[in-house]
Amino acid sequence: MPSVSNKGLSMPESPIRKLVPFAEKAYKQNKKVYHLNIGQPDIKSPQVAMDAVSLHSLDILAYTRSEGSEEYRKKIANYYKANNINVAHDDIIVTTGGSEALLFAMGSIADVGDEVIIPEPFYANYNGFATASGVKIVPVISKIENNFALPPISEFEKLITSKTKAILICNPGNPTGYLYSKEEIQKLAKVVKKHDLFLVADEVYREFTYDGVEHYSILQEEDLAENGIIIDSVSKRYSMCGARIGCLVSKNKQVINTALKFAQARLSPPTFAQIASEAALKTPQSYFDDVIVEYKERRDTLIKLITAIPGVKIGTPKGAFYCIVELPVKDSDAFAQWLLEDFEYEGETIMVAPAAGFYSSPGVGKNQVRIAYVLNIESLTKAVKILRLALEAYKD
Amino acid sequence: MPSVSNKGLSMPESPIRKLVPFAEKAYKQNKKVYHLNIGQPDIKSPQVAMDAVSLHSLDILAYTRSEGSEEYRKKIANYYKANNINVAHDDIIVTTGGSEALLFAMGSIADVGDEVIIPEPFYANYNGFATASGVKIVPVISKIENNFALPPISEFEKLITSKTKAILICNPGNPTGYLYSKEEIQKLAKVVKKHDLFLVADEVYREFTYDGVEHYSILQEEDLAENGIIIDSVSKRYSMCGARIGCLVSKNKQVINTALKFAQARLSPPTFAQIASEAALKTPQSYFDDVIVEYKERRDTLIKLITAIPGVKIGTPKGAFYCIVELPVKDSDAFAQWLLEDFEYEGETIMVAPAAGFYSSPGVGKNQVRIAYVLNIESLTKAVKILRLALEAYKD
Ligand SMILES: Cc1ncc(COP(=O)(O)O)c(C=O)c1O
Ligand SMILES: Cc1ncc(COP(=O)(O)O)c(C=O)c1O
Repeated sequence: MPSVSNKGLSMPESPIRKLVPFAEKAYKQNKKVYHLNIGQPDIKSPQVAMDAVSLHSLDILAYTRSEGSEEYRKKIANYYKANNINVAHDDIIVTTGGSEALLFAMGSIADVGDEVIIPEPFYANYNGFATASGVKIVPVISKIENNFALPPISEFEKLITSKTKAILICNPGNPTGYLYSKEEIQKLAKVVKKHDLFLVADEVYREFTYDGVEHYSILQEEDLAENGIIIDSVSKRYSMCGARIGCLVSKNKQVINTALKFAQARLSPPTFAQIASEAALKTPQSYFDDVIVEYKERRDTLIKLITAIPGVKIGTPKGAFYCIVELPVKDSDAFAQWLLEDFEYEGETIMVAPAAGFYSSPGVGKNQVRIAYVLNIESLTKAVKILRLALEAYKD
Repeated sequence: MPSVSNKGLSMPESPIRKLVPFAEKAYKQNKKVYHLNIGQPDIKSPQVAMDAVSLHSLDILAYTRSEGSEEYRKKIANYYKANNINVAHDDIIVTTGGSEALLFAMGSIADVGDEVIIPEPFYANYNGFATASGVKIVPVISKIENNFALPPISEFEKLITSKTKAILICNPGNPTGYLYSKEEIQKLAKVVKKHDLFLVADEVYREFTYDGVEHYSILQEEDLAENGIIIDSVSKRYSMCGARIGCLVSKNKQVINTALKFAQARLSPPTFAQIASEAALKTPQSYFDDVIVEYKERRDTLIKLITAIPGVKIGTPKGAFYCIVELPVKDSDAFAQWLLEDFEYEGETIMVAPAAGFYSSPGVGKNQVRIAYVLNIESLTKAVKILRLALEAYKD
């Protein structure tokens, strides 16, 4: 029997994969499970986008251009301009989700064995795209004590070798909820310019910022024109995760021409999803305002309730809809499993994402979990109550 | 300025890429261009599929399962059973087009530097997926003289090394139109079993067979349960290229578990496209019957007209909707460019795909072009007339 590749064997599994059978067991026991573990928002997609698909008049569902239609890219460029990001339609390649933009970016800038420095904890699927591309992730640790702010630039510089091709950040961060300041972006700009590296910024949560702080994109830094690559997506912005539309943005022509070759090999991004995504650009501002009010309320509720639990620390999120919570447990994997398997309060329990999967350094984050506030206030309140009671009952 | 990767630099361009500016020039001159160069059928997508999307009732366009919904996979398994291919829903991973299935297959079975043997000429994007995966394609030549039938197994065996992980075939073939016989598949089965290789079969044109010959799938060979991997797609079957839905099928559990990890990293296939594709499984048989009648007529017309041109050879297609045509020219790249730039007949010309891009061996196929019969009979007839007149006028 022929065997699979070593690459395939070393492809990581999702951090919650091991928990799925225990969640299924919990369902079978008729427990209600509050899912604090996922990044699928419960917010409705914009009506204008869903209607555009209902009203489609296609006879032949044909391939589109590999880089996305010119019309759609022009509209995306306008969206960026409205966000003070000055790019043209031919700086943009439409991708099948931010996921594919990440894959194209890695393939375009790094060869097998090359290194990308990423502040950890980071979005776990970066590991998958790096493994698929043969790229080595070099983590630089960020800390819950200062809400996962940018580590000192000296920590990055210590890690730069002749193999380093890029620094990759997620802003606002999944799983940290941290929002980098303009000053932090400028520090990063300086270091990538100095060492001739790319700065890849995953900005898929751009709209999700709280407390009146504005998002500062890497491409607002004029100095980064040759070095900056934005990863973007409609998934979270419009709560359209199932569309599978994102984009890669760069003013570096060589990067765009290279990513385009990857795009051409796979022919085209999905057509219906592009119809929805193009229409979504007409979503009224009130939609976003409502969403931000909702998430801010959830976040505030979550922080208030969590900080009231003895022995628990939280990295206060300023953006996105995740936070890292440090618990008085030794092994959050075991705790998360126990929550599903052995605990319940009035027939209910919670599912959380153990944080070790978001760290690349072994052993780090073992007493942390990621909580996504993608549930309404009432559910969230119940879920945190369950967490509190569970921690009281848990012995490890 | 940081530079792109060597991988990116060596990503191949599409065989017709160089012609695009000349096609654009032809449009500007108001020439009508008959496109014999593309794989985008002009056939309508099934109404039942397009309606299912119009009638969607989604509030939240959410991620689906990474491997595709269980319901859809069960229906795909039924489709296979109706085609004498005995697989279960958990032998199937739904992908974003056959393209992604090819990428997952290469990543799952081959490491950087590993080799995959492919009869050439082959679908040009295999080069792109191989480059992206660091896999080396080893071509084995098939010949126009016998319609691109399977080369002798001894030719494959000569090329097998310790690095060989798979043989990849396309059946029916793009660009050859060749349909492998049961006997040929059985010969391949024997050699992959003997050398412990995978047999990957790109069967995206399964339905497109003429002259009453039936397609014989690699997974109809019970012996191939551990070795066989099917690449499939809704793109051509239902003329739904823009859906971006395909699948990877294998009874080898290790392959499925590995491909699943690649699928999980990119989260999910597109949701609207899955709605369309699931509904497309209800397409009435009359749709396919009509399509086959149409393509058979086109093929017969094409063969009759092409063989009447002096000095021209054709590999008679038994499936798909492509054929390779050998022309009395030295360099089909130059000829294809000349057709767009310098030739016209009554204000019209044609665009063909130079065949060198479908060969991996340097210099081979330089006097060949690929013709796709994705135009109606009237246009096809005019297009071949233009080819005949052009060949009379052309000097190289
Ligand atoms: C930080 C981050 N980047 C990228 C993605 C990929 O999302 P998509 O492929 O749906 O655009 C996600 C999804 O959760 C994410 O959290
Ligand atoms: C032989 C072959 N395989 C795979 C594909 C990929 O098609 P898709 O990604 O649209 O399923 C094509 C498209 O033309 C093809 O001709």
